[in-house]
Amino acid sequence: MYKIAVFGYGYTGKAAVEAVEAAGDMELCGIVMRSQSVSKPQVSVPVADDIGKLDVKPDAAILCTPTRVMPELAEICLAQGINTVDSFDIHADIWDYYSRLDMIAKKHGSVAVVAAGIDPGCDSVVRALFEAVAPVGKTFTNFGPGMSMGHTVVVKAVEGVKNALSLTIPLGTSLHRRLVYIELLDGYDFNEVVAKIKADPYSANDETHVYLAQDVDSLIDVGHAFNVTRKGVSGKAHNQLLDFTMKVNNPALTGQVMIACARASFKQPTGAYTMIELPVIDMLEGNKEDIIRRMV
Amino acid sequence: MYKIAVFGYGYTGKAAVEAVEAAGDMELCGIVMRSQSVSKPQVSVPVADDIGKLDVKPDAAILCTPTRVMPELAEICLAQGINTVDSFDIHADIWDYYSRLDMIAKKHGSVAVVAAGIDPGCDSVVRALFEAVAPVGKTFTNFGPGMSMGHTVVVKAVEGVKNALSLTIPLGTSLHRRLVYIELLDGYDFNEVVAKIKADPYSANDETHVYLAQDVDSLIDVGHAFNVTRKGVSGKAHNQLLDFTMKVNNPALTGQVMIACARASFKQPTGAYTMIELPVIDMLEGNKEDIIRRMV
Repeated sequence: MYKIAVFGYGYTGKAAVEAVEAAGDMELCGIVMRSQSVSKPQVSVPVADDIGKLDVKPDAAILCTPTRVMPELAEICLAQGINTVDSFDIHADIWDYYSRLDMIAKKHGSVAVVAAGIDPGCDSVVRALFEAVAPVGKTFTNFGPGMSMGHTVVVKAVEGVKNALSLTIPLGTSLHRRLVYIELLDGYDFNEVVAKIKADPYSANDETHVYLAQDVDSLIDVGHAFNVTRKGVSGKAHNQLLDFTMKVNNPALTGQVMIACARASFKQPTGAYTMIELPVIDMLEGNKEDIIRRMV
Repeated sequence: MYKIAVFGYGYTGKAAVEAVEAAGDMELCGIVMRSQSVSKPQVSVPVADDIGKLDVKPDAAILCTPTRVMPELAEICLAQGINTVDSFDIHADIWDYYSRLDMIAKKHGSVAVVAAGIDPGCDSVVRALFEAVAPVGKTFTNFGPGMSMGHTVVVKAVEGVKNALSLTIPLGTSLHRRLVYIELLDGYDFNEVVAKIKADPYSANDETHVYLAQDVDSLIDVGHAFNVTRKGVSGKAHNQLLDFTMKVNNPALTGQVMIACARASFKQPTGAYTMIELPVIDMLEGNKEDIIRRMV
């Protein structure tokens, strides 16, 4: 049984805990939460504010924290020989982050799986597979309709915002509309807050509409949709049409992906990996013969 | 530049040749055809009836022959240290075939990629990914509407059949209807031939309709569709909806998949692999940093 610790207990952390509990080859050995102010997890394992305070050393740490604190936590774990899985989602920074963790992991005999969520993550695997089978052409990735976990966090961090929800609406061909619902803190001007939300680089290029809401929590549904579509050329044959669509509970899928990648991490040589570098078979529970007989 | 030989020059062999010609990191070094009676390929490379008669030894052989002759050809190539890629498609026999090639490849320092087509192949990767991200639930694979290359070959081999086309029509939930169009050789009884076609194990469990056609060739369109769909559970979240659909020129996609897997074969330790054991990144042309920056 692989011993797993989960960092963070927001939507994704809770989902990762549930995915560990549902796995037959893993056991939860603790939850690490930096802030003790958040609601206490209802689990029978230790909850600590530092990985060193858990009863046992985990084999892997699932980092379900905000992206900005992942690098520090990953380095701490990897340096102790603990594998890490994160869903680091700043696409432009992935290569540098990956390269740094690769060096640290190799030095300490551990494995880091980075950018392992839905996108980057599952969608990356599909994009790579699509390009492999139809090398010429254009891939589009479309999100929604559904709640953007990432943009919701960004909006919540804007000064004056008390609570927020950001919905992503797909306009096709990788273009999106964002519908943002906010509650304001007392003393803040709606229009000024809207301007700050629209100026954030996360969404500055998207059509963004901001609405004042009475009760943001009453709007929250963590379902989301993801679509990767490609029209391309295989050899000399044009008009190869490829389409991948998921309509899912977003944090539940993300947590499950991270657990699958933790499993795969134990089967790789030391270093850092993105999901497109992992054989998919390594993400599955069970033995090789059974999997190949059933799946291939 | 990887040197590639293609075995067979039917629909898939021709497509594999075109995929090699379109690749920037490969060159075609010959076509191996057992029967010299088939129309001669219009290519500038040697065409031989034995791999030993080519001017140069290839790095990999793409086996685009009927499935039943693949094992013998694969063993000959692997024993000479030549990697092989095949689209061996008898699902129930894959494990035994794979195990035998694994032993031979390891003995001779070569790599065999087996069952690398659309299904088994791409669909296998998708089925594995779907189960990894939603481990509880049921996956359905649906084919068509389109031409079944495999069943067409089976029908053509029935005594009395002069020419044939088999179309697969999806009925949903992994159930299919087969529409078979045949021309008869002189002196054969239609109903007797139909009975033999319906009795073949390949399609005995499917609803099969056989029609007499004036000109089978005028009906042939090698487009086909493939759908893998799963409704499952991630952690504790039910109703995770996953869907993958391709509508493609079937032999062109198959040929391209085989070329992508040939590329991946050069990056693996010796032995046999199914597609779910190959990191998808290894199927792509280009260097790792560019691919990760672009794709993840």
